[in-house]
Amino acid sequence: MNILDKIDVPFDIKKLNKKELEELAQTLRTQIIQTTSKNGGHLASNLGIVETTLALYYTFDFPKDKLIFDVGHQCYAHKLLSGRKDSFDTIRTGDGISGFPDRNESEFDAFGAGHAGTAISAGLGFCSARDNKGEDYFVINVVGDGAIANGLNLEALSASNSKPNKYIVILNDNGMSISKNKNGFYRFISKKTAGKGYVASKRRFVKIFGSSFITRWLISVRDFFKRLFNKSDYFEKHGFKYVGVANGNDVGELIKILKSVKYTAQHKAVFLHVKTTKGKGFDKAEEHADVYHGVGANLTCETGSFANTLGEKLNKVIENDKTVVAVTAGMKDGTGLCAVEKQNFQNFYDVGIAEEFAVTYSAGMAAGGLKPIVCVYSTFLQRAYDQIVHDVCMQNLPVIFCMDRAGFVGGDGKTHQGVFDLSYLTHVPNIKIFAPTTLKELELMIDYALELGCPCAIRYPKNAMCEREVLSVKDNPWEIIKNGDKVTLLAVGPRMLQLALDVADKIHGIFVVNARTVKPLCEKTLEQIKNTLIITLEENSVIGGFGSTVCGYYANKQIPVKVINLGVKDRFVAHGSVEEQMQKNGLTIDKITEIITNALGETNEQKD
Amino acid sequence: MNILDKIDVPFDIKKLNKKELEELAQTLRTQIIQTTSKNGGHLASNLGIVETTLALYYTFDFPKDKLIFDVGHQCYAHKLLSGRKDSFDTIRTGDGISGFPDRNESEFDAFGAGHAGTAISAGLGFCSARDNKGEDYFVINVVGDGAIANGLNLEALSASNSKPNKYIVILNDNGMSISKNKNGFYRFISKKTAGKGYVASKRRFVKIFGSSFITRWLISVRDFFKRLFNKSDYFEKHGFKYVGVANGNDVGELIKILKSVKYTAQHKAVFLHVKTTKGKGFDKAEEHADVYHGVGANLTCETGSFANTLGEKLNKVIENDKTVVAVTAGMKDGTGLCAVEKQNFQNFYDVGIAEEFAVTYSAGMAAGGLKPIVCVYSTFLQRAYDQIVHDVCMQNLPVIFCMDRAGFVGGDGKTHQGVFDLSYLTHVPNIKIFAPTTLKELELMIDYALELGCPCAIRYPKNAMCEREVLSVKDNPWEIIKNGDKVTLLAVGPRMLQLALDVADKIHGIFVVNARTVKPLCEKTLEQIKNTLIITLEENSVIGGFGSTVCGYYANKQIPVKVINLGVKDRFVAHGSVEEQMQKNGLTIDKITEIITNALGETNEQKD
Repeated sequence: MNILDKIDVPFDIKKLNKKELEELAQTLRTQIIQTTSKNGGHLASNLGIVETTLALYYTFDFPKDKLIFDVGHQCYAHKLLSGRKDSFDTIRTGDGISGFPDRNESEFDAFGAGHAGTAISAGLGFCSARDNKGEDYFVINVVGDGAIANGLNLEALSASNSKPNKYIVILNDNGMSISKNKNGFYRFISKKTAGKGYVASKRRFVKIFGSSFITRWLISVRDFFKRLFNKSDYFEKHGFKYVGVANGNDVGELIKILKSVKYTAQHKAVFLHVKTTKGKGFDKAEEHADVYHGVGANLTCETGSFANTLGEKLNKVIENDKTVVAVTAGMKDGTGLCAVEKQNFQNFYDVGIAEEFAVTYSAGMAAGGLKPIVCVYSTFLQRAYDQIVHDVCMQNLPVIFCMDRAGFVGGDGKTHQGVFDLSYLTHVPNIKIFAPTTLKELELMIDYALELGCPCAIRYPKNAMCEREVLSVKDNPWEIIKNGDKVTLLAVGPRMLQLALDVADKIHGIFVVNARTVKPLCEKTLEQIKNTLIITLEENSVIGGFGSTVCGYYANKQIPVKVINLGVKDRFVAHGSVEEQMQKNGLTIDKITEIITNALGETNEQKD
Repeated sequence: MNILDKIDVPFDIKKLNKKELEELAQTLRTQIIQTTSKNGGHLASNLGIVETTLALYYTFDFPKDKLIFDVGHQCYAHKLLSGRKDSFDTIRTGDGISGFPDRNESEFDAFGAGHAGTAISAGLGFCSARDNKGEDYFVINVVGDGAIANGLNLEALSASNSKPNKYIVILNDNGMSISKNKNGFYRFISKKTAGKGYVASKRRFVKIFGSSFITRWLISVRDFFKRLFNKSDYFEKHGFKYVGVANGNDVGELIKILKSVKYTAQHKAVFLHVKTTKGKGFDKAEEHADVYHGVGANLTCETGSFANTLGEKLNKVIENDKTVVAVTAGMKDGTGLCAVEKQNFQNFYDVGIAEEFAVTYSAGMAAGGLKPIVCVYSTFLQRAYDQIVHDVCMQNLPVIFCMDRAGFVGGDGKTHQGVFDLSYLTHVPNIKIFAPTTLKELELMIDYALELGCPCAIRYPKNAMCEREVLSVKDNPWEIIKNGDKVTLLAVGPRMLQLALDVADKIHGIFVVNARTVKPLCEKTLEQIKNTLIITLEENSVIGGFGSTVCGYYANKQIPVKVINLGVKDRFVAHGSVEEQMQKNGLTIDKITEIITNALGETNEQKD
């Protein structure tokens, strides 16, 4: 029986002594490593926060008090402690628990998250609700040092110069925002080692002047001036008492500090700065916390094939044209840009978790004569929708967006699905949208987008499954991969194309089209297939994306056609395997075969 | 001949002496007031910045140096000085110049803007481009104290702890962000009156100790400690030299300071803080700068009819249910919430120009048990697309969005058109979307949305033009206003409904439908009209919005229909009158009549 078995309800944590708490931390860590080895997930971030989570549970009363994680990728210990230890091994799987906080899953998950920057806003919202309703509880945010400088968190910190009582922001500072943190705001606050600095300078005084009257006098003069000039202190001016820096991996120390913070917070919001070690307790993850941020099953850290190709391609492009620059927002490993960082550092920009800045900064660079290529996951580029509309497309600036993780993402689940990009981009004037199915196609599209010199978006999932010779995108917007007569499958992206080919293997006479330019549509092909039953296939919402535009095209040309849109149904797609996610959305060989058979039957009947 | 006539090219400004510069400032101000009286526009912000603009032109060399305005609503003096004085009286009109900076209009407009928060990102982008290309120029941002705390600007300020040389951010501090600025970050930096504070405390020392040796010694000790503790100074840690506070309405003082800033900026980026008076030189605007922020022709400040109704309705709702709260992001006058601020201050939140925070904060309040109603213009809510998806809709939280200025906005032009909201919202799961045509309908929709308890968006233009009795929205999603047989006009919003009624007056037998629930669609009506020619009318992109969803509905039910989507074509809509904007997009009685006649002709032919 391990010590975690003793924790039936969170209150049981409060009964443990320091030694037992340390043992529990070790057990949680082992459990996290074991389960992540099996199911994949966020490793380094979850290992670092174990003791802080324990100390929080020891000090506060959840779910009465509200614990809100930013990004949510550090909630595993929290889940293990809040009634989900028995289902923990199902994490990220089809019918299992989510890898992120989810209000539907547990009342301990006060606010769901998967994107960065939301915690402080949500926390302040809870405080307002509590005070409005005359309720009484603590609201606690746990925010990483990468996410703290996201615009949304900065807006929330800044929104007022006062903050509510019983509100605590814990900065989980491991010096990494996925990769090493070079953010200015972070550097600014990371130097605020008030506690330590105070003690150190006292020691210096004693060293110079000895432990005399003059020393004490000098210290008091120093304190006077400190008060005089610290008026402008950032946190005080924003309504917080600042406490720090505490060792976030020392559960005993943390409990002491949290008790005192809890007392202080009765009358003033507290900003508590704790230092943790990302990947703590797992040597490889500690050493390479960036690489071990998110891992696959068996703790593999393979880069996607599209990402690898992108990195190599951009290096080639930059070596020919130094005005091309690669920009990412804290995702250099996942997008493949680490290769560019290595080989062409001068043309590489990682702006941290600040997608909006990444886009408008790129718009500025484009206006100044560069050719920026912004590489951000599909789901995170949602953050910069207005910057794409207002700064890039309205000014028709040559910014290229490379959107990795488009479509279904499997275990990461609903917060990470890249299933809206076609819908949030297709209606934006001036942009062109591409979806490669092979690695070579991605390269051709980058060349073509650079040639076009206008806003372009290229979207693709982690891996290309298709391999074949491809034609130039410029001369052949869509590729007819297989000729047919009665039915056309218009497929966007590699998985949909493979699905279409699989269906065409089963039913004779199907056109299979690689609809690789989503905007503009290929009118030539659309005219060619207008007398067939058309089925659009996309890993994107059926609303407002590719299929929807195809319907609109025919309607407005007043060409009577039969079009069926398959894609992501109008609901959020939970975690599970990509296959399960495709199945739940009717994107299977059987389902499509059935649809075709029924539709052709009806068509025949109508003809009779 | 006035002094502005002497300014043929910007270089001419450099020849003026201080008195002439002051005279020119006066002339510019008169011109701005006169033209705004005629054409409407942004008055108070443009009056405040006149001297700063003049001093910038005196000191720098535009367009070689790049001048980038945040929000862009303070560019009138800049336009008058950069070759556009002769076309200035056409500002905001159909074929005239834009009320905002526009790269297509002039090489002096380095970066276009109409939304807040973009300048620092764009400025840093220009610096990177300049340095990459080995060019040599200054990049200057002018940012208001409201916009400085927008998340995008904060991300840009924070992105790195170093900043490029020859980069200057000017904080145009008039203490207003449309209305009075209560932002925490602003309060924090507004206290940084380094220059003044320094002088004042020196005076205090002299007053207490006299001008003696001990005074000088104390001052030097003070300076020592100041250096010791000011290490953590916000601007220094973010890579700027901070200079301030200067009087931004004193052209002589400003020129002196800018010369020195220009020298300093050779080696270090400078953050220059200037205080200006919003509405300077026009008494009413100085006194009521919030009201005179943006005005109509004849300097009228009338609130829209929907906004008036919203304010009154929310007051009624709040008085019945104290868990309802009204939230806006610096738009309390335009959205009508000033009425709520007056009557129900406890339930009113203006978070400043921070749309993302407004939405996630509301999501937090909803999770905590409140019913937030977020009132933001359609175009500005684009900023919070991901917060709507990830924080509100994914958690199915009862947040209601009231989107004023949906559809065409006239003179404000392309940055302000509310023509994408249906496209960026319709594909988001869990949300319901409404478009009232009468004031009563807005009230009914708010009641219904509160009853639904899920994410809801209500979108409407400034004024309701329709007046008639309306049925409950709950029981009758769409209203058939006029019965017909061969043709159906499905209209969204008051202007489109009026247009439909006007067409129906000309052609006999037309169904006119008030399609007031855009999501979900009214299947009952769609079934009823499926045998008619259907024309959808919306003030939104024809891609991904209402019409597109109607096409998708029929396609996926495999119901063969004739649908034509009318709405905003796939390009940005420039400034002009709403009538011109409708005409350019084919939304006129004549055009629709023609389309119907042609389509019916074809239908008849096909039947023959």
